[in-house]
Amino acid sequence: MIENLTVIGPGLIGGSLIRALRENNGVKQVTGCSRDFNSLDRALKLGVIDKATTDVKESVLDADVVVIATPMGVIADIFKTIQPALKPGAVVTDVGSVKTSLINELTAEYGEVPAFFIPGHPVAGNEQSGMEASYASLFEDRNVILTPASNADSSALDKVRAMWELAGAEVVEMQAEWHDVVLSATSHLPHILAYALVAQLSNMSEAEDIFKFAAGGFRDLSRTASSDATMWRDICLTNADKISDMINSYQAQLTKIDEMIQAKDAEGLHELFSQAKKTRDSHFE
Amino acid sequence: MIENLTVIGPGLIGGSLIRALRENNGVKQVTGCSRDFNSLDRALKLGVIDKATTDVKESVLDADVVVIATPMGVIADIFKTIQPALKPGAVVTDVGSVKTSLINELTAEYGEVPAFFIPGHPVAGNEQSGMEASYASLFEDRNVILTPASNADSSALDKVRAMWELAGAEVVEMQAEWHDVVLSATSHLPHILAYALVAQLSNMSEAEDIFKFAAGGFRDLSRTASSDATMWRDICLTNADKISDMINSYQAQLTKIDEMIQAKDAEGLHELFSQAKKTRDSHFE
Repeated sequence: MIENLTVIGPGLIGGSLIRALRENNGVKQVTGCSRDFNSLDRALKLGVIDKATTDVKESVLDADVVVIATPMGVIADIFKTIQPALKPGAVVTDVGSVKTSLINELTAEYGEVPAFFIPGHPVAGNEQSGMEASYASLFEDRNVILTPASNADSSALDKVRAMWELAGAEVVEMQAEWHDVVLSATSHLPHILAYALVAQLSNMSEAEDIFKFAAGGFRDLSRTASSDATMWRDICLTNADKISDMINSYQAQLTKIDEMIQAKDAEGLHELFSQAKKTRDSHFE
Repeated sequence: MIENLTVIGPGLIGGSLIRALRENNGVKQVTGCSRDFNSLDRALKLGVIDKATTDVKESVLDADVVVIATPMGVIADIFKTIQPALKPGAVVTDVGSVKTSLINELTAEYGEVPAFFIPGHPVAGNEQSGMEASYASLFEDRNVILTPASNADSSALDKVRAMWELAGAEVVEMQAEWHDVVLSATSHLPHILAYALVAQLSNMSEAEDIFKFAAGGFRDLSRTASSDATMWRDICLTNADKISDMINSYQAQLTKIDEMIQAKDAEGLHELFSQAKKTRDSHFE
């Protein structure tokens, strides 16, 4: 049971975490902090949060656990702002999709990642955003990856782990560097592919017809292009090198397929498509 | 009401068409033809078809309407085989995803597309395949694109149109060439992108970890990679030039994004992602 939880940026992820903890009797009082006063007001009225403030420093004064659930780009700065205001024993975690850059920023400022800061990433979410889109079961059967530094305080780590487990997630620990490689492949690249597809089709002079006749494949593939632009800009900027590597090897793969198509390589195409189908079917429903 | 309907290759599309017509009292007797005897047997037992044969020529002897619902690669050959066996007045259509190549093959054989052959393409389906996956509402609110030649028999066209409308679809007519451009963008390219993504990730030495931590974006984006390999091989081979063009402009779009990422162009990335989100949100739910 967390006595006082502060969520900075209670959107889809932060809001869903609060709802999940409330359903499982895992939190007593929740303070929400956001620059968006209207969003805080709605969260108060919905009973998702108990207290609201637009001042990040003020928001953490009583907090036992602080979850920074903002886009990547501002996490380190928010931590620097709240750090002097934290209670002794307070634990801080975040939900950012990229871990190395944050760790580097914190290390540059403090010489190491503060022991009570446990970097985290719930591998959950959808193309929606905002607190209104949040729901308690978002993390059920989803992985939450924690990337604690070697100096991490073990009781802080336990607290963060217990919080996510109570929210329904499976918690795994991983090196930050490896996390960023895995996610660049499984999340960052697919999002960029979707954005690129929608951008390409929009640029075609016949865009209206194109979208009118869009088939299910396009609908599925482009869904993630409805994700929040600020969040994805920040992910691209903070995981730039690994994403760029993934884009490059993806382009090589596409070129290979294009060459097979141009060469009318029936056997090669069939083999590649069969193999991909087999792989996907074996991993998903 | 179609007295005698023959569906050659009653899989997801053909099976769904039969089910939809039956529900709407649109067909009296259905003959199914397939090389797969077991599949025919199941279709008979399920009551989807009334008669079954593995002989295409025999399957059309009584047919008023013939729907060729096989992969692209064999449609023209099947038509050439059945053509001498058709009753006078019989109407033939297909459900292939590419239209120009088929029309070219028929024109090469007959000097023109036979007037009673109405090329068609229901823009519906999913990553499933086979008759067992078929369902009556598959075509509801979906477009069926017909690409009749200028010499098309108007009563044949009316029959095919009426059949699809009864199955719940919205029928539109289009030039075959334009159909193939639109579909290369909205369907063929997205499928290839999904196949390429799964192929790329499978090739990474850490494939198991990669798939274990795959997020929703990857799941959505890769869904179409579970589609039938033969069908997609044939689409690639028969619409090769247009698909290749689409891949090339997609590569250019990806390169542009990669350059923005490497240049840490925050504003450019945000603009591109916002624009894509706006476009997608305005066209889909």
